[in-house]
Amino acid sequence: MSFLISEDIYNGFISLFKDKNPLHTDEQFANSRGFAGRVMHGNILNGFISYFIGECLPTKNVIIHTQEIQFKNPVYLHDKIFFDASVSDVIESVNAIQFKYFFRNNTGKIVAKGKIQIGMFS
Amino acid sequence: MSFLISEDIYNGFISLFKDKNPLHTDEQFANSRGFAGRVMHGNILNGFISYFIGECLPTKNVIIHTQEIQFKNPVYLHDKIFFDASVSDVIESVNAIQFKYFFRNNTGKIVAKGKIQIGMFS
Repeated sequence: MSFLISEDIYNGFISLFKDKNPLHTDEQFANSRGFAGRVMHGNILNGFISYFIGECLPTKNVIIHTQEIQFKNPVYLHDKIFFDASVSDVIESVNAIQFKYFFRNNTGKIVAKGKIQIGMFS
Repeated sequence: MSFLISEDIYNGFISLFKDKNPLHTDEQFANSRGFAGRVMHGNILNGFISYFIGECLPTKNVIIHTQEIQFKNPVYLHDKIFFDASVSDVIESVNAIQFKYFFRNNTGKIVAKGKIQIGMFS
Protein backbone atom coordinates (compact mmCIF):
# COMPACT_ATOMS: atom_id res chain seq x y z
CA MET A 1 0.00 0.00 0.00
CA SER A 2 1.06 3.61 -0.32
CA PHE A 3 0.72 6.75 1.77
CA LEU A 4 1.02 10.36 0.73
CA ILE A 5 2.86 12.75 3.03
CA SER A 6 0.34 15.53 2.51
CA GLU A 7 0.26 19.01 4.00
CA ASP A 8 -2.68 17.79 6.08
CA ILE A 9 -0.68 14.91 7.57
CA TYR A 10 2.37 17.09 8.18
CA ASN A 11 0.47 20.02 9.71
CA GLY A 12 -1.85 17.69 11.60
CA PHE A 13 1.06 15.83 13.16
CA ILE A 14 2.66 19.09 14.32
CA SER A 15 -0.65 20.34 15.63
CA LEU A 16 -1.18 17.13 17.66
CA PHE A 17 2.28 16.49 19.01
CA LYS A 18 3.92 19.96 18.96
CA ASP A 19 7.24 18.78 17.51
CA LYS A 20 8.42 21.89 15.64
CA ASN A 21 12.11 20.96 15.63
CA PRO A 22 13.77 23.09 12.91
CA LEU A 23 14.76 19.96 10.98
CA HIS A 24 11.01 19.51 10.38
CA THR A 25 9.99 23.14 10.00
CA ASP A 26 12.92 25.27 8.78
CA GLU A 27 14.01 24.69 5.18
CA GLN A 28 17.33 26.50 5.61
CA PHE A 29 18.17 24.61 8.79
CA ALA A 30 17.42 21.29 7.07
CA ASN A 31 19.48 22.32 4.01
CA SER A 32 22.41 23.23 6.24
CA ARG A 33 22.32 19.72 7.74
CA GLY A 34 22.54 18.15 4.30
CA PHE A 35 18.88 17.56 3.49
CA ALA A 36 17.00 18.62 0.36
CA GLY A 37 14.18 20.13 2.39
CA ARG A 38 12.31 19.91 5.66
CA VAL A 39 12.55 16.34 6.92
CA MET A 40 9.18 14.84 7.79
CA HIS A 41 8.71 13.43 11.29
CA GLY A 42 9.61 9.74 11.40
CA ASN A 43 6.70 9.09 13.71
CA ILE A 44 4.30 9.91 10.90
CA LEU A 45 5.38 6.53 9.53
CA ASN A 46 4.50 4.93 12.87
CA GLY A 47 1.02 6.38 12.45
CA PHE A 48 0.75 4.58 9.11
CA ILE A 49 1.76 1.37 10.89
CA SER A 50 -1.14 1.90 13.29
CA TYR A 51 -3.48 2.08 10.28
CA PHE A 52 -1.95 -1.02 8.69
CA ILE A 53 -2.33 -3.15 11.81
CA GLY A 54 -5.67 -1.74 12.91
CA GLU A 55 -7.44 -1.64 9.58
CA CYS A 56 -5.74 -3.70 6.88
CA LEU A 57 -5.33 -7.20 8.28
CA PRO A 58 -7.85 -9.98 7.62
CA THR A 59 -9.02 -9.69 11.23
CA LYS A 60 -9.70 -6.73 13.53
CA ASN A 61 -8.95 -8.95 16.57
CA VAL A 62 -5.42 -7.66 17.01
CA ILE A 63 -3.27 -5.58 19.32
CA ILE A 64 0.29 -4.35 18.87
CA HIS A 65 2.83 -5.80 21.30
CA THR A 66 6.07 -4.27 20.07
CA GLN A 67 7.38 -2.07 17.26
CA GLU A 68 10.85 -1.28 16.00
CA ILE A 69 11.73 1.26 13.36
CA GLN A 70 15.05 2.30 11.81
CA PHE A 71 15.10 5.52 9.82
CA LYS A 72 17.42 5.10 6.83
CA ASN A 73 16.71 8.03 4.52
CA PRO A 74 14.76 11.27 4.75
CA VAL A 75 11.10 11.62 3.85
CA TYR A 76 9.99 14.96 2.42
CA LEU A 77 6.68 16.75 2.10
CA HIS A 78 4.53 15.41 -0.78
CA ASP A 79 6.53 12.16 -0.96
CA LYS A 80 4.52 9.09 -1.83
CA ILE A 81 5.69 6.31 0.46
CA PHE A 82 5.24 2.63 -0.36
CA PHE A 83 4.77 0.20 2.49
CA ASP A 84 5.50 -3.54 2.29
CA ALA A 85 5.10 -5.94 5.17
CA SER A 86 5.46 -9.67 5.35
CA VAL A 87 4.98 -12.20 8.13
CA SER A 88 8.41 -13.06 9.50
CA ASP A 89 7.37 -15.29 12.41
CA VAL A 90 4.31 -16.94 13.90
CA ILE A 91 4.46 -17.67 17.62
CA GLU A 92 1.53 -20.03 18.04
CA SER A 93 2.03 -20.60 21.77
CA VAL A 94 1.05 -16.98 22.49
CA ASN A 95 -1.09 -16.23 19.40
CA ALA A 96 1.45 -13.70 18.15
CA ILE A 97 2.61 -12.76 14.68
CA GLN A 98 5.73 -10.87 13.74
CA PHE A 99 5.98 -8.72 10.63
CA LYS A 100 9.01 -7.33 8.90
CA TYR A 101 8.32 -4.16 6.95
CA PHE A 102 9.87 -1.57 4.66
CA PHE A 103 8.87 1.94 3.73
CA ARG A 104 10.27 3.03 0.35
CA ASN A 105 10.01 6.36 -1.44
CA ASN A 106 9.05 6.68 -5.09
CA THR A 107 12.66 6.23 -6.21
CA GLY A 108 12.63 2.81 -4.54
CA LYS A 109 14.98 3.86 -1.76
CA ILE A 110 14.25 2.38 1.67
CA VAL A 111 13.37 5.26 4.00
CA ALA A 112 12.59 3.12 7.03
CA LYS A 113 12.33 -0.50 8.03
CA GLY A 114 11.61 -2.54 11.10
CA LYS A 115 9.51 -5.15 12.84
CA ILE A 116 6.09 -5.27 14.43
CA GLN A 117 4.79 -7.95 16.75
CA ILE A 118 1.06 -8.23 17.26
CA GLY A 119 -1.15 -10.42 19.39
CA MET A 120 -4.42 -11.89 18.21
CA PHE A 121 -7.43 -12.27 20.47
CA SER A 122 -8.90 -15.75 20.33
CA MET B 1 7.32 15.03 31.87
CA SER B 2 3.66 14.12 31.52
CA PHE B 3 1.16 13.94 28.69
CA LEU B 4 -2.61 13.92 28.83
CA ILE B 5 -4.48 11.58 26.52
CA SER B 6 -7.13 14.15 25.71
CA GLU B 7 -10.13 13.85 23.41
CA ASP B 8 -8.24 16.18 21.05
CA ILE B 9 -5.24 13.87 20.87
CA TYR B 10 -7.39 10.76 20.49
CA ASN B 11 -9.71 12.21 17.86
CA GLY B 12 -6.86 13.99 16.10
CA PHE B 13 -4.87 10.78 15.82
CA ILE B 14 -7.85 8.94 14.31
CA SER B 15 -8.52 11.81 11.96
CA LEU B 16 -4.88 11.81 10.74
CA PHE B 17 -4.18 8.11 10.48
CA LYS B 18 -7.65 6.55 10.06
CA ASP B 19 -7.08 3.71 12.51
CA LYS B 20 -10.61 3.06 13.76
CA ASN B 21 -9.97 -0.52 14.90
CA PRO B 22 -12.80 -1.43 17.31
CA LEU B 23 -10.31 -1.91 20.15
CA HIS B 24 -9.78 1.86 19.93
CA THR B 25 -13.30 2.96 19.11
CA ASP B 26 -15.86 0.45 20.43
CA GLU B 27 -16.25 0.28 24.21
CA GLN B 28 -18.13 -3.03 24.17
CA PHE B 29 -15.57 -4.64 21.87
CA ALA B 30 -12.72 -3.50 24.14
CA ASN B 31 -14.59 -4.73 27.24
CA SER B 32 -15.16 -8.12 25.63
CA ARG B 33 -11.38 -8.41 25.08
CA GLY B 34 -10.71 -7.77 28.76
CA PHE B 35 -10.09 -4.02 28.79
CA ALA B 36 -11.74 -1.41 31.00
CA GLY B 37 -12.51 0.82 28.03
CA ARG B 38 -11.39 1.80 24.56
CA VAL B 39 -7.64 1.23 24.34
CA MET B 40 -5.75 4.26 23.08
CA HIS B 41 -3.50 3.84 20.03
CA GLY B 42 0.02 2.93 21.08
CA ASN B 43 1.41 5.16 18.38
CA ILE B 44 0.08 8.19 20.22
CA LEU B 45 2.96 7.48 22.62
CA ASN B 46 5.37 7.48 19.67
CA GLY B 47 4.10 10.96 18.85
CA PHE B 48 5.05 12.06 22.37
CA ILE B 49 8.52 10.62 21.75
CA SER B 50 8.77 12.83 18.67
CA TYR B 51 8.04 15.83 20.88
CA PHE B 52 10.53 14.76 23.53
CA ILE B 53 13.38 14.33 21.05
CA GLY B 54 12.52 17.30 18.85
CA GLU B 55 11.72 19.84 21.52
CA CYS B 56 12.93 18.85 24.98
CA LEU B 57 16.64 18.10 24.66
CA PRO B 58 19.34 20.69 25.37
CA THR B 59 20.00 20.93 21.61
CA LYS B 60 17.76 21.01 18.55
CA ASN B 61 20.59 19.52 16.46
CA VAL B 62 19.22 15.99 16.56
CA ILE B 63 17.62 13.35 14.41
CA ILE B 64 16.08 10.02 15.38
CA HIS B 65 17.91 6.94 14.08
CA THR B 66 15.91 4.12 15.64
CA GLN B 67 13.02 3.57 18.03
CA GLU B 68 11.72 0.54 19.85
CA ILE B 69 8.56 0.35 21.90
CA GLN B 70 6.97 -2.45 23.90
CA PHE B 71 3.37 -2.00 24.95
CA LYS B 72 2.90 -3.49 28.42
CA ASN B 73 -0.46 -2.22 29.66
CA PRO B 74 -3.42 -0.38 28.17
CA VAL B 75 -3.72 3.39 28.05
CA TYR B 76 -7.23 4.83 28.29
CA LEU B 77 -8.82 8.12 27.32
CA HIS B 78 -8.10 10.91 29.85
CA ASP B 79 -5.12 9.02 31.30
CA LYS B 80 -2.23 11.18 32.40
CA ILE B 81 0.94 9.47 31.24
CA PHE B 82 4.33 10.08 32.82
CA PHE B 83 7.41 9.80 30.65
CA ASP B 84 10.93 9.16 31.96
CA ALA B 85 13.98 8.82 29.77
CA SER B 86 17.62 8.41 30.64
CA VAL B 87 20.76 8.15 28.56
CA SER B 88 21.71 4.49 28.32
CA ASP B 89 24.62 4.76 25.91
CA VAL B 90 26.80 7.33 24.18
CA ILE B 91 28.40 6.25 20.91
CA GLU B 92 30.98 8.97 20.39
CA SER B 93 32.39 7.56 17.16
CA VAL B 94 29.14 8.34 15.33
CA ASN B 95 27.80 11.18 17.53
CA ALA B 96 24.90 9.05 18.69
CA ILE B 97 23.06 8.79 21.98
CA GLN B 98 20.80 6.02 23.14
CA PHE B 99 17.94 6.59 25.57
CA LYS B 100 15.99 4.08 27.60
CA TYR B 101 12.48 5.24 28.44
CA PHE B 102 9.31 4.33 30.31
CA PHE B 103 5.75 5.55 30.05
CA ARG B 104 3.78 5.05 33.28
CA ASN B 105 0.13 5.74 34.07
CA ASN B 106 -1.01 7.59 37.16
CA THR B 107 -1.09 4.38 39.21
CA GLY B 108 2.64 3.99 38.49
CA LYS B 109 2.15 1.02 36.18
CA ILE B 110 4.46 0.85 33.17
CA VAL B 111 2.30 1.13 30.05
CA ALA B 112 5.17 1.13 27.55
CA LYS B 113 8.94 1.11 27.47
CA GLY B 114 11.70 1.03 24.94
CA LYS B 115 14.78 2.60 23.46
CA ILE B 116 15.52 5.52 21.17
CA GLN B 117 18.77 6.19 19.35
CA ILE B 118 19.42 9.68 18.04
CA GLY B 119 22.18 11.25 16.07
CA MET B 120 23.55 14.72 16.77
CA PHE B 121 24.66 17.07 14.01
CA SER B 122 28.06 18.53 14.65
